Amino acid sequence: MPSEKLQAIILAAGKATRFKTDKSKLLEKICGQEMILYVTKLLEEINIPTTAVVGFQREALQKTIKKQHNNRINYTLQKEQKGTGHALLCAQPHLTKENILVLNGDMPLISKDIINALYEKHVKTEAKISFVTAHNSDPTAGAYGRVINNNKTIEIIEEKDFTGDIHEHCCINAGIYIIKKQFLDNHINNLTTENKSHEFYITDLVKIASEKGLTVSTLSAPFDKVRGVNTLKELWAAEQVKRAEVVKQWMNKGVRFSLAQSVHIDLNVTIGAGTYIDCNVHLLKGTQVGKNCTINGFSTLSQATVGDNTTIYPHSIIGNSTIGKNAKIGPFACIHEEATIGDDAIIGNFVEVRKSSIGNNSKAKHLTYLANSCIGSNVTIGAGTITCNHDGHQYHRTIIENNVFIGANNSLVAPVDIKEHTATTAGAIICNTPQTTCSICYNPQEESTSNQPKKKKRFCKKNKEHQVSL
Amino acid sequence: MPSEKLQAIILAAGKATRFKTDKSKLLEKICGQEMILYVTKLLEEINIPTTAVVGFQREALQKTIKKQHNNRINYTLQKEQKGTGHALLCAQPHLTKENILVLNGDMPLISKDIINALYEKHVKTEAKISFVTAHNSDPTAGAYGRVINNNKTIEIIEEKDFTGDIHEHCCINAGIYIIKKQFLDNHINNLTTENKSHEFYITDLVKIASEKGLTVSTLSAPFDKVRGVNTLKELWAAEQVKRAEVVKQWMNKGVRFSLAQSVHIDLNVTIGAGTYIDCNVHLLKGTQVGKNCTINGFSTLSQATVGDNTTIYPHSIIGNSTIGKNAKIGPFACIHEEATIGDDAIIGNFVEVRKSSIGNNSKAKHLTYLANSCIGSNVTIGAGTITCNHDGHQYHRTIIENNVFIGANNSLVAPVDIKEHTATTAGAIICNTPQTTCSICYNPQEESTSNQPKKKKRFCKKNKEHQVSL
Amino acid sequence: MPSEKLQAIILAAGKATRFKTDKSKLLEKICGQEMILYVTKLLEEINIPTTAVVGFQREALQKTIKKQHNNRINYTLQKEQKGTGHALLCAQPHLTKENILVLNGDMPLISKDIINALYEKHVKTEAKISFVTAHNSDPTAGAYGRVINNNKTIEIIEEKDFTGDIHEHCCINAGIYIIKKQFLDNHINNLTTENKSHEFYITDLVKIASEKGLTVSTLSAPFDKVRGVNTLKELWAAEQVKRAEVVKQWMNKGVRFSLAQSVHIDLNVTIGAGTYIDCNVHLLKGTQVGKNCTINGFSTLSQATVGDNTTIYPHSIIGNSTIGKNAKIGPFACIHEEATIGDDAIIGNFVEVRKSSIGNNSKAKHLTYLANSCIGSNVTIGAGTITCNHDGHQYHRTIIENNVFIGANNSLVAPVDIKEHTATTAGAIICNTPQTTCSICYNPQEESTSNQPKKKKRFCKKNKEHQVSL
Repeated sequence: MPSEKLQAIILAAGKATRFKTDKSKLLEKICGQEMILYVTKLLEEINIPTTAVVGFQREALQKTIKKQHNNRINYTLQKEQKGTGHALLCAQPHLTKENILVLNGDMPLISKDIINALYEKHVKTEAKISFVTAHNSDPTAGAYGRVINNNKTIEIIEEKDFTGDIHEHCCINAGIYIIKKQFLDNHINNLTTENKSHEFYITDLVKIASEKGLTVSTLSAPFDKVRGVNTLKELWAAEQVKRAEVVKQWMNKGVRFSLAQSVHIDLNVTIGAGTYIDCNVHLLKGTQVGKNCTINGFSTLSQATVGDNTTIYPHSIIGNSTIGKNAKIGPFACIHEEATIGDDAIIGNFVEVRKSSIGNNSKAKHLTYLANSCIGSNVTIGAGTITCNHDGHQYHRTIIENNVFIGANNSLVAPVDIKEHTATTAGAIICNTPQTTCSICYNPQEESTSNQPKKKKRFCKKNKEHQVSL
Repeated sequence: MPSEKLQAIILAAGKATRFKTDKSKLLEKICGQEMILYVTKLLEEINIPTTAVVGFQREALQKTIKKQHNNRINYTLQKEQKGTGHALLCAQPHLTKENILVLNGDMPLISKDIINALYEKHVKTEAKISFVTAHNSDPTAGAYGRVINNNKTIEIIEEKDFTGDIHEHCCINAGIYIIKKQFLDNHINNLTTENKSHEFYITDLVKIASEKGLTVSTLSAPFDKVRGVNTLKELWAAEQVKRAEVVKQWMNKGVRFSLAQSVHIDLNVTIGAGTYIDCNVHLLKGTQVGKNCTINGFSTLSQATVGDNTTIYPHSIIGNSTIGKNAKIGPFACIHEEATIGDDAIIGNFVEVRKSSIGNNSKAKHLTYLANSCIGSNVTIGAGTITCNHDGHQYHRTIIENNVFIGANNSLVAPVDIKEHTATTAGAIICNTPQTTCSICYNPQEESTSNQPKKKKRFCKKNKEHQVSL
Repeated sequence: MPSEKLQAIILAAGKATRFKTDKSKLLEKICGQEMILYVTKLLEEINIPTTAVVGFQREALQKTIKKQHNNRINYTLQKEQKGTGHALLCAQPHLTKENILVLNGDMPLISKDIINALYEKHVKTEAKISFVTAHNSDPTAGAYGRVINNNKTIEIIEEKDFTGDIHEHCCINAGIYIIKKQFLDNHINNLTTENKSHEFYITDLVKIASEKGLTVSTLSAPFDKVRGVNTLKELWAAEQVKRAEVVKQWMNKGVRFSLAQSVHIDLNVTIGAGTYIDCNVHLLKGTQVGKNCTINGFSTLSQATVGDNTTIYPHSIIGNSTIGKNAKIGPFACIHEEATIGDDAIIGNFVEVRKSSIGNNSKAKHLTYLANSCIGSNVTIGAGTITCNHDGHQYHRTIIENNVFIGANNSLVAPVDIKEHTATTAGAIICNTPQTTCSICYNPQEESTSNQPKKKKRFCKKNKEHQVSL
């Protein structure tokens, strides 16, 4: 795209009153990404300098955009909501390029080929204004203006002002325009509010151009690509389309889905080939699943890393944690808050692991709670065992060294350190054992020099290598 | 509707043999409401006096209708199943109004505008008989009679007798008629059983009227609105349509759904604006969810009340219980049998709360069982704690006063009363402590005067106010 | 089918490179059955002698086929992948009958009526080659050759070589042929690799026949019946169709489904009439569910047997286990590894039962782990109870005789035998009680003579009768 001749204005100021919620619709997430970022990232990808017209909840909106784009996007304020034409007027001081791309912020399914094709046609036909149309004759499909194309003139009638038959006039205005700056400058002030909404419409520029005999070009696109999001129903529909796109992409890369339509995968997730994703699995927030894994039904992984060949049994929740290779997790496991599970480890049913590291080949299979713990390799934790990590005032750590056998129904009262090759009896209450400093958990030298974020040090990440120093 | 000129007959006597089950299909629930009540409530709403023709499982059917309508609906018995015409004959002694609306009991999707429009057309055209038609050429779409409309005559051929091409004759009889009483009285006895089913058909009245040159009127309606339910597949289809209607209604009121097609909401549920409903959530039996809540996936709420801003984490079950504001419940929580959870409280994973009240800002986060308990505010219950509420003979209550810390893996052997500001050690077995009478749990004065149902008194509903008396 | 005049060749040698996985697509399961077996079982059912052309992963493939068909199917090896024509060439030595049916191994939805109709038409029209066509103009619908039928000639253009408009040429080649052996013998060596894939195409035989003025017959079939599976997306689509077929079949037999499209049922499962299957239930691997049961949402039953009138509450997992009549299981129950639950028994939330038998009318309702146990009738297991069945070296058994009450939070340290009519106190640790030999668990005489597999003897299957000998 010729960035020297084209700049973009995103209309992002409106309050989506039809959402009936307090939050800006543009901050609602679709497949884990805020709606506004679908448009801003697309424009950045095709290298078009962008100005966002903001108004409603602009601080939150700008914060979200800034997190993604730093200061590469400009903003202009539309204080009052007086229509799309008025939004453009607010942006006028920012207009410097020969052509102005105008599009709504609520178009999460738009793709770059449509923008490219519109620009190409706009240039080729030497149009004053060009816009994208789509076919839609569904009366419930949202508030789209209708394109009325007589032999000589072309006009867009906004939904509120349209009284014809939508089956006859099934061509809608998608709300994506490229306008010659000069034409815009000449006529933006001719817009009026003589319509049912008493708003200034960009669409009247089409009528003006048409009436003056100037060239107006249109590009037809599939409705699903340009659908807007003005209601919660449309938000659901848009996410459906995006979700299906994401799943199909992973199918093409060798991931098998049993009931693909029930699975949700965020945009920034990765999955290895040969992995099987069962029904109703959710993979969220940058989760990385290895190759040849099985993720069984009703499991949710968020900010999780799962090694190759690992099986997650049904109804498991993994949040902000790392699972090794060849591990077996669940069913009904809850692993969260920076837990680390080693290779070949087994975490079974009704087991919660939290702020703990579990070494390779260790097992905790039944009704167990492991928190603030550093557990070595080849450890077996008996059924019903509880780490009593809080004394009413503060948290304490439990250390279980390599090759330990904890009998069933134990209470491990932290601070406690179970030495290597120890076995405890069933029902034991183990408390106040002298605790060796765990060189991984706490290493003063490392602390002073390390660049790693401090919270990462709470747990032993590499039991195998370091456990010897216990 | 002019109730003085119109009365309704509901055909509700048949045994739905194609269901292959023992239970009357009319008692099967759709979005939590028995199928028969969709028609009876509609007729009551538009003020049409109604008689139900009953037969198969009539006692159960009448009991269900009575629960909703008291004695406002009449019944007539059709002892043997000899067809729709015979059912009408059974109802004849009840016919007193000028016009008789006849419709099947298995039309859960019918809406009042169709009834109104049919009546209007019937009156305007001065028809002897009027009926609703719909378009359907799906051969698997159930057993509908086909409307054969030659230039001069109109006739309905029942499915069993129809031998033509359903694509050519795609107009079906929906089974909703308005008949002039006088015409009905004159001709009901002319019906014969000369057909494959050897039954009396109402539809023959159409033929009779047509042949005599009397006016027959038809009204076309969308198939989905008039679809009947003769098989379990049709029941599933009808509930699909109704379920989608209910979800869309909540979308329009500001509720966000992630995977709307996986959610089930009963008719009598309410949800506040700004609430987010994740995949596979079930909201049943009058559940009330507040504003700005999050109900995560795979959770089922039945007869539940949830305060504003509360989060229900995935895989939680709440039955016949009340959750306060700003609370956090789950994942994998099971709260049932009249439990009450206070504001800002946290109930975590693998925790069951049953017949208990938990005060504001109290926590039970891991692998815990709380039953028959009255727990105050600012209480922390350690992981793995069990209220031992049954001694093999009877249940006893556990009282935990405000600001108590229960260590992990405790056994609280009821009857037991843990005093304010107490802390217990990990693994403790607390038993047989002298128990103070809980003024909320047991108040003899209140008992003798209260109108509240007795079972409501078992638990302390308002710990904060009353706990002082402990 | 006249097996004396027809034999079948299954093309099963190819590597499904578009799957992007290591495993042969023909071994992927659809509704619990390997894809290849859909075709082989169909051919056996209609009594057509069959030869499979194998190559990629042929050992695994032949092993799967052999398990189903013993040695009733022949194999021929296609070492290199040089196209369908080449596969046929490899099979030539096996061809003995007058007509050769050729079909792909990846057609899990094919039905016998299509094969029968093709054969009938082939014989009646005295065709040299006959094949099945279907209508498809979806550009994403996989790699199908297009049937180009001019007035005089008929030809199939493979997808890679096709350059026309698929909407104009919407008739595809399904890949199912019947070829006269004599015609095949005469012309198989005339096939060339003059095409984009440089492969030998069976489809060129159609062109040859057509050009020589020999009869070519076609049979049109619904696309869904003949769809192939060349990508993971097509695998998903095929399983969708099959899954819907299976569910509809059970609807017709009196099973109610709430959200039928979310349920997965394997082919070899049985369900009694009057049973209700809620959303997202999975019934796998030969599971048998009785009459009038309720299987609630998110539950998975695999190799399970469930008696009549039993309720499985939500989120329950039952694997390789047997549940009696009128039992109540779950929510959040995990019953697996050859467990047996008696009639009227209750297994509640967060309870795991493994390698154990539970007698009639016994209960374990909360946060309990029962393993390697033989539990009698009328037993109550208190909340939080753990069978401590492993001492760090080996597993031991827990015996609980009839009419026992185990208090809450007990640790039952195996080997242990709790005698009839015993009650234990809350929080008790019961260990090393002298253990009576359980005549069901261990009967030396039976062991020496029995034909039953040994593992079946680990648990008491019929507590009621045998518990007296304890």
